[in-house]
Amino acid sequence: MRLSKRVQALSTSPIRKLTPYADAAKAAGKKVYHLNIGQPDIITPPQYMEAIRKYDAPVIAYGNSKGDPKLIKAIQGYYEAKDMHYAIEDIFVTNGGSEALTMAVTALCDEDDEILVFEPFYANYTTFAKTFNAKVKAVPTSVENGYHLPSAEVIEQYISAKTKAILVTNPGNPTGVVYSEAEMQILGSLALKYDLALIADEVYREFVYDGAYRSFGTMPELDQNVIMIDSVSKRFSACGARIGCVISKNKEFSKQIMKVAQGRLCSPAVEMVGAAALYDTPASYLEEVNKEYKKRRDTIASALAKLPGVKSSEPQGAFYVMVQLPVDDAEKFAIWTLENFAIDNETVMFAPGNGFYSDPARGVNEARLAYVLKAEDLERAIYILGEALKAYPGYTLK
Amino acid sequence: MRLSKRVQALSTSPIRKLTPYADAAKAAGKKVYHLNIGQPDIITPPQYMEAIRKYDAPVIAYGNSKGDPKLIKAIQGYYEAKDMHYAIEDIFVTNGGSEALTMAVTALCDEDDEILVFEPFYANYTTFAKTFNAKVKAVPTSVENGYHLPSAEVIEQYISAKTKAILVTNPGNPTGVVYSEAEMQILGSLALKYDLALIADEVYREFVYDGAYRSFGTMPELDQNVIMIDSVSKRFSACGARIGCVISKNKEFSKQIMKVAQGRLCSPAVEMVGAAALYDTPASYLEEVNKEYKKRRDTIASALAKLPGVKSSEPQGAFYVMVQLPVDDAEKFAIWTLENFAIDNETVMFAPGNGFYSDPARGVNEARLAYVLKAEDLERAIYILGEALKAYPGYTLK
Repeated sequence: MRLSKRVQALSTSPIRKLTPYADAAKAAGKKVYHLNIGQPDIITPPQYMEAIRKYDAPVIAYGNSKGDPKLIKAIQGYYEAKDMHYAIEDIFVTNGGSEALTMAVTALCDEDDEILVFEPFYANYTTFAKTFNAKVKAVPTSVENGYHLPSAEVIEQYISAKTKAILVTNPGNPTGVVYSEAEMQILGSLALKYDLALIADEVYREFVYDGAYRSFGTMPELDQNVIMIDSVSKRFSACGARIGCVISKNKEFSKQIMKVAQGRLCSPAVEMVGAAALYDTPASYLEEVNKEYKKRRDTIASALAKLPGVKSSEPQGAFYVMVQLPVDDAEKFAIWTLENFAIDNETVMFAPGNGFYSDPARGVNEARLAYVLKAEDLERAIYILGEALKAYPGYTLK
Repeated sequence: MRLSKRVQALSTSPIRKLTPYADAAKAAGKKVYHLNIGQPDIITPPQYMEAIRKYDAPVIAYGNSKGDPKLIKAIQGYYEAKDMHYAIEDIFVTNGGSEALTMAVTALCDEDDEILVFEPFYANYTTFAKTFNAKVKAVPTSVENGYHLPSAEVIEQYISAKTKAILVTNPGNPTGVVYSEAEMQILGSLALKYDLALIADEVYREFVYDGAYRSFGTMPELDQNVIMIDSVSKRFSACGARIGCVISKNKEFSKQIMKVAQGRLCSPAVEMVGAAALYDTPASYLEEVNKEYKKRRDTIASALAKLPGVKSSEPQGAFYVMVQLPVDDAEKFAIWTLENFAIDNETVMFAPGNGFYSDPARGVNEARLAYVLKAEDLERAIYILGEALKAYPGYTLK
């Protein structure tokens, strides 16, 4: 058989590509602190499995292609409480935020069309675009100004007739940036001026540690442009459920993605039962989780500050931090650490930074760290990272 | 926002497009016999929910992108028992057979590439191809010879330099055809001669009522060509679980689809726990189910034989039958029946046939009937269908 150019052009996930090295380290008896993947160690609210255990339908049957009505109603209620008013018809349940993004790309992009992103950005955005022979067009941002956006004029230079959407992760993955009101206004104006979709990936909405947060869903002037991407994965520490949603008030968008939704029939029945129950989780759960992550953010920030030559911004949201490391090549360093380094038989894994750039020549000495472990484990992991740096042959501060 | 030509070119599922009419009929108090969708009324083996109820992981976490190891092992064991020997690395768990097919198209097709299918065929194949700007190229088959294949020479005329795969549903949906050894040899030879993938959609493998059945997975000469599509949906009456798999011994194919699998992270965690348990279902379950469907097949066949002007083949497998109806237009008839016809407040829904053809001008007076209801309900449904025919203004035997 002859494989497509399409699939051969895809990249391996920077978050998962080093897993074989981690597996080998574990097989050799090492403990690995996973800072590579945004898999929280927070307990999933027990409501999830409690609702599922009570589920007693005799047949695990196909559901509605738009999702289980009870779950859709729960999602609607969650947004109502935030003063965002969506009709039942606006909400499509998806197989995680990933499928929500895939549906958005399907609906928007023909071959060679472009989606504007702000670099560094979530690596799988490239996969979702390239799968459809579309492209991400990356506007650079940098650690120096905390990964905040450049001016409208600069962003505008990256918009062409091929541009179909601006894709914004807010709070940001991998940067932890939370956009200001002024930045959101800039993006909104550009979406309106160029008739672009504004894909708002807000799966980390509940994880903001400093200052205000506003959702793109609260800007009525953008009602026809915003495509909201959401998920229970991070919010309720239920990444394995693979339940997300895509929401839009644009009726033509909804009409078109219904065909895609019907093609894959429906989302998983039992997980939808659990997900609907998650939305009944008391507000105190999210407050506690938020407090815990703020503590972790502070812990990793102060631990990183002790490492010479390590530069990072101060993330205000989500649970990632991008760091510049004093090494020749962060991927080589990551592999070397898993293969050759341990303290008391413990080592650390992180995601090489260049996977979060459209040009892999950028971010070569950067890494994304996910602070999804409890504070003491984070301290330990960053300590090991610091010692590994000094021992690594490609350390540049020698 | 401007939507893609890609999404606008997709069709609505013929199996689900008339759902609003059925909903309206139900809202008006009518009972609707659903012959439109392959949703069996067979009880899902209780092992599914039993295993899930025992699942007590504190965090519903991301899993391996290839699928839960226990489930993969169970799938491997299922095939071992059928003398098909797959390595763990050959098996990828997917979100239903639908995602398995989507991954295959991603891996094989660039824009304008073609996938050979035999018409009439499962409507969503068109959706999966068009989503990637690829095409299905349909080789006609007909009710007159039971939807069996034409000769190698005829099939060959449909193969071009753009052809990347032959996609075979065996047993067939919507036709119920089961291919003979000779037909399989023809397809295998063509795959080898033209270096094509042979995508074997065998989700109805356990539903064969007459004669022998052979899987494409038992033809060692095709090891590098076969891409096996499978699912728990029909086999274990667990359509809502959305657990399928794609299997290939072609290492390059597996290497490439790993990138696609990583992009969407993983399959749903809890459903995978249930699916693994389904593979422990005793053989007697499948034997009973097979017996039940054979009875239903015989019931619908004899009920249809009583209706003047209705022509159908004798399906040997799966649980569908394509019928030619004495009407002007089967879709109009389907809508008319839902809106205007009932006996004792009961009516019937079926899938218009033209959705199963690449050219919707074909199959206009055909319909797909899914015999997924118990025999007495099927008899009743076909009786209603017969009476509806006579009452329908577009009945051609008047």
